[in-house]
Formats: sequence, structure tokens, C-alpha cells
Amino acid sequence: MRAAIFRNGQIVADSWPDPKPAAGQVLVKTLACGICGSDLHARQHAHRMVELSKHFPHRKPMDLSRDLVFGHEFCCEVLDYGPATSRKLRPGTRVCSLPALLTPAGIEGIGYSNDNVGGYAERMLLSEPLLLEVPNGLPAAHAALTEPLAVGIHAVAKADISGGEVPLVIGCGPVGLAVIAALKLRGLHPIVAADYSPTRRALAEKMGADIVVDPARSQPFVTWAEHARMSPEEEAARPPLQAMLPALKPALIFECVGVPGLLQQVFEGAPRDAAIVVVGVCMESDRSEPMLGILKELNVQYVLGYTPEEFAYSLRLIAEGTVDAASLVTGSVGIDGVAQAFADLANPETHTKIIVEPWR
Amino acid sequence: MRAAIFRNGQIVADSWPDPKPAAGQVLVKTLACGICGSDLHARQHAHRMVELSKHFPHRKPMDLSRDLVFGHEFCCEVLDYGPATSRKLRPGTRVCSLPALLTPAGIEGIGYSNDNVGGYAERMLLSEPLLLEVPNGLPAAHAALTEPLAVGIHAVAKADISGGEVPLVIGCGPVGLAVIAALKLRGLHPIVAADYSPTRRALAEKMGADIVVDPARSQPFVTWAEHARMSPEEEAARPPLQAMLPALKPALIFECVGVPGLLQQVFEGAPRDAAIVVVGVCMESDRSEPMLGILKELNVQYVLGYTPEEFAYSLRLIAEGTVDAASLVTGSVGIDGVAQAFADLANPETHTKIIVEPWR
Repeated sequence: MRAAIFRNGQIVADSWPDPKPAAGQVLVKTLACGICGSDLHARQHAHRMVELSKHFPHRKPMDLSRDLVFGHEFCCEVLDYGPATSRKLRPGTRVCSLPALLTPAGIEGIGYSNDNVGGYAERMLLSEPLLLEVPNGLPAAHAALTEPLAVGIHAVAKADISGGEVPLVIGCGPVGLAVIAALKLRGLHPIVAADYSPTRRALAEKMGADIVVDPARSQPFVTWAEHARMSPEEEAARPPLQAMLPALKPALIFECVGVPGLLQQVFEGAPRDAAIVVVGVCMESDRSEPMLGILKELNVQYVLGYTPEEFAYSLRLIAEGTVDAASLVTGSVGIDGVAQAFADLANPETHTKIIVEPWR
Repeated sequence: MRAAIFRNGQIVADSWPDPKPAAGQVLVKTLACGICGSDLHARQHAHRMVELSKHFPHRKPMDLSRDLVFGHEFCCEVLDYGPATSRKLRPGTRVCSLPALLTPAGIEGIGYSNDNVGGYAERMLLSEPLLLEVPNGLPAAHAALTEPLAVGIHAVAKADISGGEVPLVIGCGPVGLAVIAALKLRGLHPIVAADYSPTRRALAEKMGADIVVDPARSQPFVTWAEHARMSPEEEAARPPLQAMLPALKPALIFECVGVPGLLQQVFEGAPRDAAIVVVGVCMESDRSEPMLGILKELNVQYVLGYTPEEFAYSLRLIAEGTVDAASLVTGSVGIDGVAQAFADLANPETHTKIIVEPWR
């Protein structure tokens, strides 16, 4: 079969051995697979990912001297079953799955693995117990957005919201937009979102942001503070020793960029007692001033992935039209277009989410 | 009066103008004032503290070209009152107070201020509404430990404990020891504590640590994991996708050292989903790998200080003998001995807490 292969730091279209389903596995046709920011990061920083995997002895690291196929945001069609499967879903059924494979050796990832081919290939293998049937005749390109939406749903769930927070979302790429959608579902108001790109800010508003900020024109934390003032009643109810501090509602900041220096900027701008959720994946070493965290008593919650329940919930949200995931899709390519799509995604004005359709 | 003054990066004994109580203020005799690790840090990194204060426009920064007097862990005796005071406590009464002064301009700190003299001086000014009478004839040197104990009480309160956590305290200086005492009060078991010094490890056991680790001999996180195994029932109750992960109870790690590189060590050693409370005050810029935080979904809570309620609670804990604060005191000096005491505190085998008695 054909696949867009990660080889020597580049994405190349080439042939790949046809996968054969083992016990408990399902052979599927890849209908649609989103290109994730993590894939762009991974192409640049694959050696860092391998280096970091030394801290996780139960995970098999990528072998970068060998080929592998990225792609972990997929919607597929059932083709055939391996042994020891219950075959409840007929061939032709559209399915999503967590990007994981249950093997006798444990759980293995799909997409950053030499063993398990990812979604930038015509066919792949999934584990039968993880299959979720795609409901409501939802187009495959939209069902493929389940994974990035689940990242936002999970990030907001980990934020441990009590109700009175005013959120600030920094960075409105697919992850930031998913966070905004998840915040809207939780009923937080106003949602403030910052991005340098006018296209991304327009998308942020579409997904539920109430206030959008261009950091080139105004400081996001200043705009946030203007919209986070306590009511006169809340202000009057504060204990005496807090009455000297600015009368602001609790801050809930989502860092959805993931480049070095960003967390330090958040430390500098954040108000006292802010809760910061780090959703952006920064693969490089980073420097920050712990004294700022200490003096402001900041909380930093690093997040990754989602639970199986959050993943299934995200698919339902898209299928039922509660979240307008279709707005994020700005292009689609076949196997031969993946390398160019990686380059094109550098421009936030042109693209938000490009869907790979390997059958094209 | 006499004071141990911070001047040009050194501690020198010299004379200081006699303080005069303004409206709402009380003139007190300093009976005892603990030397805090933050004072040792501040002597070395005072310029960093000033630099960081640019982020806090409502606080007046220290002017290092002028003299100032450290000391914020004090127990005093009421001498005289300024105007507009209710004078409920007779002269001679022993009192503690938060190291803060209520002024018409707002709340000001005591101890890192050119305006408000700290506890390394014969007399100082306090705000009448913040005075707490020392109960039970408690010796002044022990009442002075209220402040560092409150730091531990606050750190544990901010940890948002749900009950099943197994704590690991890294660093058993006064702050780490206060954290151990606070954890014991919360009933967490076993409490694991790590320090290179045998004296500090013995003190940790005295304050409530169940397991002590010498990091030179065994990795604290390995020892922690040996004592944090889930029960067979807890292990069996885990959802299927978690069954491949190590069967460990939730980790609650207190970083009580405060030097660059320590947080990165915690990131490397911490298990998945660990909650990390940063109590150690690192005044330098620090480097860490956010990917480790992300891959393990770590939570980092930076903490500082305490609430007035936590401060008052800490004084009661010491006065009622619930916390054996006296064990921490390893020496006392007069004004002339403060500079040497700063040097002596570098050796954890000799000293834990030195009390300044300015009247000596």
C-alpha cells in the first residue's frame, strides 16, 4: 500500500507493507486523518522525543534509523478482522479509535511507532475493543476531528473548574480552538482568546470566544483583566487583607502554543493565584523564573491526551452538531500531498486543519 | 537602638533609629526572631528580588543602596502604643504577628523593607489589629517558630489533599520539617522524607516522617514507590487502560530545597499524575523540560506565605504542644552574632534554626 513515511527527518510518499490483523485486531481503510501540530513538532524534534522516552521504560521508543508513519487523528472503515474478534461491526462501517493498540505486551501507541502504522497510510490496524462506530452519517473528515477535540475536552476537565473563573486561551490553533469549544460547553463567561492571526481569531469567535485579542495590538492579560473584574458584591465580600489586591475573578489560563519562553511570558502576565493549563507541547528545554510562580502562588497543570470516555464524548459532540468541528478543516490532501501540507500548515492565515485522505 | 543591618550585601551590627509608633501601631521589644532560609537567599540574591518586584507594582521594592533589617519570624513584647489604638493588651504581653504592617498606603512587608525594621533589631513596630497574644506561657523562642510552621501548614493546605496520597518531602530544612508536621496532622501515611544530612533526617522522623531517605544512598523516588504500592483491591479496581501502568497510590511531592535544577530532578523522578508543591524558594532562573511535565501530566503548585487563619492556627499548635517546634531550635545569638549565624547555617549538621535575641 501507499503511505506518507517519516524517513530521515522528511515526509516522503512511498510504499509500505500491507498490514495483517493479529488476534483482536481489525484491518481498516483510512478514510481521513488530520495532521496534528504534534506531527509538525515531531518532524523537527524527533530526536528529543526519543531522548525523553528514556524516562518511560514501559514505552518502546521510536527508532529513527527506520521508517515510520505518523497520523493519530483518524476515521476509518472496517475492512477485515483478525482471529479472536467478535466482528460486531460489519465491513464498511465507519469507526474511530483512540490511537492505541492493545497487544499482549501492553498498550502501544499508533502514529509515533515503527511497529504500528499511523493514519497517513491507505490501511492500518486497530484494536477491536477500542472501536467506536461513527454515528449520524457524519463525514469521515469531521469524525477525524474527534481526537483534537478530545484534547481540549480533557484539558478543560483537568482544570478543575469551580464556576467563577474567567478563562484566557493563548494560541488559537486546533488545540486552542478545541479548548474554547470545551470551555463554552462548561458555561464559562467571558472566554478571552489571543492569537496573532485574524483568521484564527475569527475561528475562535466561531467556536465560542467572547473576546478576542491580537497580542500585537494589546497585551492579552490586560484585556483579560478588563473583562475579569469582580462585581461590587464580590469585591465587598473579600477578607480585609485581600482588599488591597486587584479585585479580579479567578484566572484560568490555557497555554496552547508550546514554544520555549511562552510559559515564562504567562508567569509574567498572570495575575496572583492563576491556574495555568499547559496544553501546548513544547519539546525543547525551557527556562522560567520560579520566583514569579512562588510570589503569585501559580498552579501549573500539564496535560496530555484524554480518557476513553472523553474521546467517546468528543465524537458524540461532533456527530450531534454541538461542536462545529467542520469549521476547522481548511484543506485536504492525498498521500502525495502530505509533505507540502506540513509546510503549508506553517501559515495560520491559510490553514488550520488539513485532512489526509490516503485513498485519493 | 542596636540592629543587625543588611548593608552592601553583608550583615553588620550597628545602631538604627528608634522606631516611633504611628496611628494604629504598637512599639514592641523583639524577644526572639528566627533566621529564615529566605534571609540567607536574600543576602545572596537581593538584586534578583528587586528585579522581580517590577512585576508587582503595588509593592515597594527594596532600595539596596540604603540599609535595611531582615527578620520576619518574631515573638515580641508590647512596650507602648501609638495614637488611634485600643490598647487591649497590657505592656509586657507577649505577642506574635504576621510580618506585615497595615499603613494608609496599603499592606507593607516587615523584614524586606527599608521602611519597616525587621526582627534583628531591639525594637520594632507592629499593627495592632494583627497582634496575637502568645498563650500558655510559651517561651518566645518557640513562639517565633509560628511563622515557619505556618509556611508548612499553608503548603499542605494548598496541596488539596483528598486522602489517599503518599507524600514525599524533598529537603528537611525548617520548611520541609514544617511540611512534615503539617502532613502528620492531616493523617497521611506513610510520610517519606529525603535529606543528605543525618541530623535533618533524625529531625524529620521526630516531626512525623515514617520513612527517611539519604539521596546519596538510594533514589528518593524509588524508595517512595516501594512504600506507595496500591493494595490488591485498589489495583483490581483500576480501569482496563490503566492496568498497564505501575500500581502506585497518588504522589504528593513537596520540593523544599529551592535551588536551580531541583524541579527538573523532580520532573524526572516523579511518577505519572504526581502533584508537586514548590515550597523551596529558588531565586534564580531555572530550566526544566516541559515535555516531562506533559507526558506525566504533572501538577505544580507554587506556594508562598500563609493566611492569617493559618498563622493563628500555627501558634496554637505550638502552644498546645501538638507540634514539637522546640526541636528545631539549635542555637541562639545576640545582634553581634547574626553575621556568624548566617555563615553557620550553611552546615545542616550543626544548625536547623538559630534564634536571634536582640536584647542579649
